Amino acid sequence: MSLAKQDPAYKASKSLDVDGKCYFSYSDIHQTICSLVPRIKEFDPSVIIAIGGGGFIPARMLRTELKVPILAISLELYDDSTNTARPEVKKIQWFDENSDVGSKVRGEKVLIVDEVDDSRATLQFAVEEVIKCNEPAAVCVAVVHNKRKEKKGVLPPNVIYLAGEDVDDKWNCYPWDAAAYGNSIVEHEKLAKVCSGVAEGRD
Amino acid sequence: MSLAKQDPAYKASKSLDVDGKCYFSYSDIHQTICSLVPRIKEFDPSVIIAIGGGGFIPARMLRTELKVPILAISLELYDDSTNTARPEVKKIQWFDENSDVGSKVRGEKVLIVDEVDDSRATLQFAVEEVIKCNEPAAVCVAVVHNKRKEKKGVLPPNVIYLAGEDVDDKWNCYPWDAAAYGNSIVEHEKLAKVCSGVAEGRD
Repeated sequence: MSLAKQDPAYKASKSLDVDGKCYFSYSDIHQTICSLVPRIKEFDPSVIIAIGGGGFIPARMLRTELKVPILAISLELYDDSTNTARPEVKKIQWFDENSDVGSKVRGEKVLIVDEVDDSRATLQFAVEEVIKCNEPAAVCVAVVHNKRKEKKGVLPPNVIYLAGEDVDDKWNCYPWDAAAYGNSIVEHEKLAKVCSGVAEGRD
Repeated sequence: MSLAKQDPAYKASKSLDVDGKCYFSYSDIHQTICSLVPRIKEFDPSVIIAIGGGGFIPARMLRTELKVPILAISLELYDDSTNTARPEVKKIQWFDENSDVGSKVRGEKVLIVDEVDDSRATLQFAVEEVIKCNEPAAVCVAVVHNKRKEKKGVLPPNVIYLAGEDVDDKWNCYPWDAAAYGNSIVEHEKLAKVCSGVAEGRD
């Protein structure tokens, strides 16, 4: 058990894919989002706002080190019933400001967490809604992955933006979605090892 | 890639510990909570209520297969400032019923998710509060681990109770808390392999 807390052998870089899909293990996600902890601690948020569903797991991974509570919000970019893009992002869940944790947003520093910054549309909407509805003193955004691509969304000025890793614009498969790709979690984690270039059966 | 979706090699049983602590990997948690999917699908919930912070990750793991949204609540059993037990569980975060997702509780079937059923006090409080405040038609509780021990809390009748695994009353270390035990996630996952009796370096 001689590994350092930040494992020096870990390199946050996925260059390989399987049939155009890039598989990430739970360890990959944990290490990538937690690599942002020093910079997030400088920002010193009072509360984390997790954008559901993708933000829940990275937010909870961060919480152990940041030691601040998590609020959940949910937005919808597509309407599942018609499979078409809505004209705007829809706000389907928000927190109650009249609660212990909910009261930690107004006038305070908040960290907004999601798994991936794709078009940036969801992030823009989430950040603008939090600023408009809950008036925090400052906002920092942390995502596990930022896709290298043209962004449709723009974040307001003064918002701090942190990405654990910049990745190519491929199809990202996250471990919590393993079943959606027909894989058991064991199978998914093996595919993630292939994608990270680690020989099978080794750590 | 010939593994079945429910990996037959997986046996949800931890008999070993390291210095009295039982370490669980992300894969362990994913497999254990998702082993409940068939029974949860029979219950057929409209929404998941995750008890933060331990319930967030198992809830998100379930969501991919259940395809229903997640609401977050937070309760506090201990007051961190004095490190003493509060006289009662405190409700520090609740969902807003006047939102798309929040409206899926009243009169509907809800699944309440947490990582561990220890004394059952938090679970009892969460279930009773949901029933009292939001009047669902039916409640099912799903936890990753149920500790074999005398319970202080009692669940109301008619509540369905599901545990992914019954475990001994040892100190459980969950992967999202790795840093709290001074471990990197890589180190934590190795300890989890030791606890599951899997030889190092193998899956």
